[in-house]
Amino acid sequence: MMRILVANANTTDAITELCAAAARAAAAPGSEIIPATPRFGAAVISSRLENAIAGHALLDLLAGHAGQVEAVVLAVSLDTALDAARQLMPCPVVGMTEAACLTACLLGGRFGLVTMGGVETYRELIGRHGLAARLSGLRGIAATPQDALRDPPAVEAMLLQEIDSLVAEGADAVVLGGAALAGMAARLGPRAPVPLLDGIACAVKQAEALVALNLPRPRAGSVAPVAGRDSKGLSPALAALLRG
Amino acid sequence: MMRILVANANTTDAITELCAAAARAAAAPGSEIIPATPRFGAAVISSRLENAIAGHALLDLLAGHAGQVEAVVLAVSLDTALDAARQLMPCPVVGMTEAACLTACLLGGRFGLVTMGGVETYRELIGRHGLAARLSGLRGIAATPQDALRDPPAVEAMLLQEIDSLVAEGADAVVLGGAALAGMAARLGPRAPVPLLDGIACAVKQAEALVALNLPRPRAGSVAPVAGRDSKGLSPALAALLRG
Amino acid sequence: MMRILVANANTTDAITELCAAAARAAAAPGSEIIPATPRFGAAVISSRLENAIAGHALLDLLAGHAGQVEAVVLAVSLDTALDAARQLMPCPVVGMTEAACLTACLLGGRFGLVTMGGVETYRELIGRHGLAARLSGLRGIAATPQDALRDPPAVEAMLLQEIDSLVAEGADAVVLGGAALAGMAARLGPRAPVPLLDGIACAVKQAEALVALNLPRPRAGSVAPVAGRDSKGLSPALAALLRG
Amino acid sequence: MMRILVANANTTDAITELCAAAARAAAAPGSEIIPATPRFGAAVISSRLENAIAGHALLDLLAGHAGQVEAVVLAVSLDTALDAARQLMPCPVVGMTEAACLTACLLGGRFGLVTMGGVETYRELIGRHGLAARLSGLRGIAATPQDALRDPPAVEAMLLQEIDSLVAEGADAVVLGGAALAGMAARLGPRAPVPLLDGIACAVKQAEALVALNLPRPRAGSVAPVAGRDSKGLSPALAALLRG
Amino acid sequence: MMRILVANANTTDAITELCAAAARAAAAPGSEIIPATPRFGAAVISSRLENAIAGHALLDLLAGHAGQVEAVVLAVSLDTALDAARQLMPCPVVGMTEAACLTACLLGGRFGLVTMGGVETYRELIGRHGLAARLSGLRGIAATPQDALRDPPAVEAMLLQEIDSLVAEGADAVVLGGAALAGMAARLGPRAPVPLLDGIACAVKQAEALVALNLPRPRAGSVAPVAGRDSKGLSPALAALLRG
Amino acid sequence: MMRILVANANTTDAITELCAAAARAAAAPGSEIIPATPRFGAAVISSRLENAIAGHALLDLLAGHAGQVEAVVLAVSLDTALDAARQLMPCPVVGMTEAACLTACLLGGRFGLVTMGGVETYRELIGRHGLAARLSGLRGIAATPQDALRDPPAVEAMLLQEIDSLVAEGADAVVLGGAALAGMAARLGPRAPVPLLDGIACAVKQAEALVALNLPRPRAGSVAPVAGRDSKGLSPALAALLRG
Repeated sequence: MMRILVANANTTDAITELCAAAARAAAAPGSEIIPATPRFGAAVISSRLENAIAGHALLDLLAGHAGQVEAVVLAVSLDTALDAARQLMPCPVVGMTEAACLTACLLGGRFGLVTMGGVETYRELIGRHGLAARLSGLRGIAATPQDALRDPPAVEAMLLQEIDSLVAEGADAVVLGGAALAGMAARLGPRAPVPLLDGIACAVKQAEALVALNLPRPRAGSVAPVAGRDSKGLSPALAALLRG
Repeated sequence: MMRILVANANTTDAITELCAAAARAAAAPGSEIIPATPRFGAAVISSRLENAIAGHALLDLLAGHAGQVEAVVLAVSLDTALDAARQLMPCPVVGMTEAACLTACLLGGRFGLVTMGGVETYRELIGRHGLAARLSGLRGIAATPQDALRDPPAVEAMLLQEIDSLVAEGADAVVLGGAALAGMAARLGPRAPVPLLDGIACAVKQAEALVALNLPRPRAGSVAPVAGRDSKGLSPALAALLRG
Repeated sequence: MMRILVANANTTDAITELCAAAARAAAAPGSEIIPATPRFGAAVISSRLENAIAGHALLDLLAGHAGQVEAVVLAVSLDTALDAARQLMPCPVVGMTEAACLTACLLGGRFGLVTMGGVETYRELIGRHGLAARLSGLRGIAATPQDALRDPPAVEAMLLQEIDSLVAEGADAVVLGGAALAGMAARLGPRAPVPLLDGIACAVKQAEALVALNLPRPRAGSVAPVAGRDSKGLSPALAALLRG
Repeated sequence: MMRILVANANTTDAITELCAAAARAAAAPGSEIIPATPRFGAAVISSRLENAIAGHALLDLLAGHAGQVEAVVLAVSLDTALDAARQLMPCPVVGMTEAACLTACLLGGRFGLVTMGGVETYRELIGRHGLAARLSGLRGIAATPQDALRDPPAVEAMLLQEIDSLVAEGADAVVLGGAALAGMAARLGPRAPVPLLDGIACAVKQAEALVALNLPRPRAGSVAPVAGRDSKGLSPALAALLRG
Repeated sequence: MMRILVANANTTDAITELCAAAARAAAAPGSEIIPATPRFGAAVISSRLENAIAGHALLDLLAGHAGQVEAVVLAVSLDTALDAARQLMPCPVVGMTEAACLTACLLGGRFGLVTMGGVETYRELIGRHGLAARLSGLRGIAATPQDALRDPPAVEAMLLQEIDSLVAEGADAVVLGGAALAGMAARLGPRAPVPLLDGIACAVKQAEALVALNLPRPRAGSVAPVAGRDSKGLSPALAALLRG
Repeated sequence: MMRILVANANTTDAITELCAAAARAAAAPGSEIIPATPRFGAAVISSRLENAIAGHALLDLLAGHAGQVEAVVLAVSLDTALDAARQLMPCPVVGMTEAACLTACLLGGRFGLVTMGGVETYRELIGRHGLAARLSGLRGIAATPQDALRDPPAVEAMLLQEIDSLVAEGADAVVLGGAALAGMAARLGPRAPVPLLDGIACAVKQAEALVALNLPRPRAGSVAPVAGRDSKGLSPALAALLRG
């Protein structure tokens, strides 16, 4: 039995559930999906500001599950605090957009990304992942997560139009960005000219793959575990992991 | 039951067997590894020239298995003809070095690569994969596949020394490059300060993940299937797939 | 009178004081330096993990000063939560390493950076700032902030040796990275062959310059202020700024 | 007398003749153009798949002329197997798109490229040549080589429109990509606002220049000749060159 | 008292005055702006050719003020001869577009640039400054400096339209490029959605900052002063500085 | 008869003669080499400062030959004022380092460069040419042009050592940078493991190739000719070309 923590970074349980459902749909038979929502932070992350706060919230959340899960999926579109989480946890940690982009790389030349709202932070994220050369384009539709719940056909039509436009510009695959679009790729897939990638689904498969590879934790390098670190004002679990 | 073709690109059966063994060690319970060796080409690929010939040899080999396997792993260090194979085959195709590099990206910041012989073609390959920014360094040890068979401890010591040097330069993970090193990562792993990645093992896991994601074949873009293409002098199977 | 908040990101008051002293030495006559230390977080940030926690700690700290200062200097070597802080605050926010690197760009061709400890996170930071092409090299000396206090001549000698090495590789200026080296550039400057840049001093000058330019706050783009955002578990000041 | 082999990579003699005519128009008085068509492969290369097969076909073709020509021009738009051909042959080898792009670099700032059909493989090719920073844009017109023969004015009008658009985006010169457009640059040139570059013509001039420079064959590096390599199933000429 | 030389590179006094006025508006109380116009060169620089000539003209101009000013601002849009001027002068030298771009980096993610006329030389300049990754886009309006004087509202409307377009593409700030737009940012600022940056104003602030930092002149590296250099046909002041 | 102006940029006739001799050795039978030395500037260019002055000197020199030569070779290592010269002259203009680097690209994967003195300006130049990805490394030997005349064997030994080191790092060809090394590649070639490239020789061949291609002068773009430009203090020939 492999336990995979699906850690939302918003404090909205409905998004956690949406991601958990997408994760369960993708998980292998022996994988158990454990959803989790942080203690503090923005209800819905949609700015740099909320995202930076979420870094601590996610680490606080993860610390409470260290040693009790075999892998972690960060269910947050900007792969918030990803390397810090890798340093914190004794198990593999995978970001949802990272996983979708890397999977897209396995399917052809360049990939596109479509999301709801602004795209600049996605551009930066893909640049930080070192994948800018594989990115054919970014699109943001003028819709909110609420719109996606209220009028799905309208949002789906907007997404398909941008997907076609991305393909015309050279995308061999398209990532659907954002936790609020979890599960959408499966619905839209049959109508799209190229494969659509769901971050949660891709991250679950990568998490399972990493667990199966059974790689040792690094003893050196930039994500090696810390020890002997003093802190104040942090949750007992997080403070304990800093002390090592 | 998932059948994964492990397609060697040189014509030496012993290397095919080495790769198949590494693939079987990594495969999930329900995966069957099907090794294959091409009809023509170099006994051992170790130059740009032999590698370019191997592109055709691999496609010729794959064409004979189209529709009979659920995924393909290219067991050739330079991911030869990778996108062409994706265009040819109705199933996922994964390159061994590609898979190892993308997996390394999931483990930290930058990764290094060590291989036997020259490194320039690896540098170009990683650049073509768009991952140059994630590469911390490359090392080639002065040893041949024959040396690896004749005096394993000596080759292992050379590899470990270069791995340490790569870590000192910033690698959070190290890829062992080359089909002739298949299986070596598992042996050296406990002695290395960061995770070591075996291309065949990573490719098998990525192939399984792609099969599980069950993505549709693209109808547009640069790897969409071809049809109606005339040719001459090719194997019947390959010519048939060009005709569509 | 211009009030400049010098916001440390770790919870050690001595480092706050060190940075405040460097800031006061650099400040123009009319500038008042207001030091501040966060409520929670690591005593000394020296890992990705501690740094990610510090993002929230810094924003929490800044929220308490919004509207009461004319500019903010982030006294943390990795420019933690920099764009989030820009989105949060109604005044200019400058990161210390960002400021030093941009100032170095004004002095010649490429610049180097030397710090205590590992350099990979600096490499990433400079990449995120889009300045990788201006970076000639990075060096980390094997010393801790404690060493710098206990045996200054030894640490200074180590720094000077690396500075010379960076110059030999093409640096026209060298950034001293890390809050714990605040003030060191002024001491070592006369002995170095190229200008040395102190992040705190550079950030104070950039903060003063931005205040003088009196630019309007953006009404659009990725750092435009947020409003109407719900949250839970945050400090009243931070929650209030999210609500707008 | 300088013999220049103009090696087509598809198996259609008409395209070989078209390229040979363009080569003869560009050749210096003392240069003899020797056209050649491979034994096997696609009739017309227009996919990644056909292009990968063509690598072997070209090398097979070239091997039969080794020692009998002073230079080789690869008359294939994606510069297929270019470095392998350099490693194989004892004389200079020049790719047609490579030559056109490098010549374009000698004329101003950035250059554009227009071709028939998709552009992604050209984008990748120019990236592999390390010239992405010199590329202002790519355009593919919706026409086939057959259209170019059937209705030349219509195709020429489409090309000129895209050339104007590329110039408006910053191109100081425009490469006409693809063997099927050989000779077109000379016809359209007078109507275009910037120089148009014909790959075959540029490659012939570069081949003549390299022959005149009389550079020694490398004894080291990634294109040094191979020797002592075993193979099976290859043409006698190619197998002999692998044995050295 | 800080004397800042504002060195125009055109030989049109009206542009010198326009820049001097913008400089005075930005200067701190203790700064004195000293305008200067070169002895030779184009009336208005608007081509690569005129710009290359201006390099010598600027150095000739600066040599006459060496030792008599505390800083230099190059009032020429392409930051002409910037590093040469740094090597020549015993005081800080700042380029106007360089200063505006670096200041834009302090305000958010990516920035755009709008100017009158062509944009390719700006694209190259920003690339040379190593800031291509921070550039969201470039726009050239179809207007001349003369238009800006004759019909300001028309030119302002054109600029604002392009600024809005740049913001829609991801700019968090916009640089107004070109000496002829000096002072325009202050006029248009209230109507723009993001901060607008005036090169002269930014350069004056950076010059003041550098003077305050009081950095030593480099004794090594690519901008260290020259000495013992023979020349002929240069102005006595410039020849004297080459002799050292 | 093709007249090729070989324009030195420093004012030392001996270097002009050295370059002219190398040009004559490389020129085709029908090419006449016309050496030229500027009226003003540094005796020997070895700094950014001298190089910036040389831009004007070169353009001044070229203007006097406009219409009287069929091509221009800039015999100056940093390809000074190259694009400005292209805009000025009604014939092809080729830079010596540009030509050597582009020729190196035709020979394999990456190339190295070795020169006398500092390498940073070469690094920048190759970056401006957009060829950074093709550059394997740079080396500067601690010798001056005077040393090369006084003790050739010592300088040759230093060069060969660095060439070997560049090859070990991945160079498939090596450019000898600097006008003072004109002719050296031919002497050292037989002793080097990879081809050595002489900038003057390469530039002459590229100039001949461009003349043979007979491309029209651009009517648009960043190097289109200027007209109607006022100036003062320039040579009559240069001023006349600005007026058009």
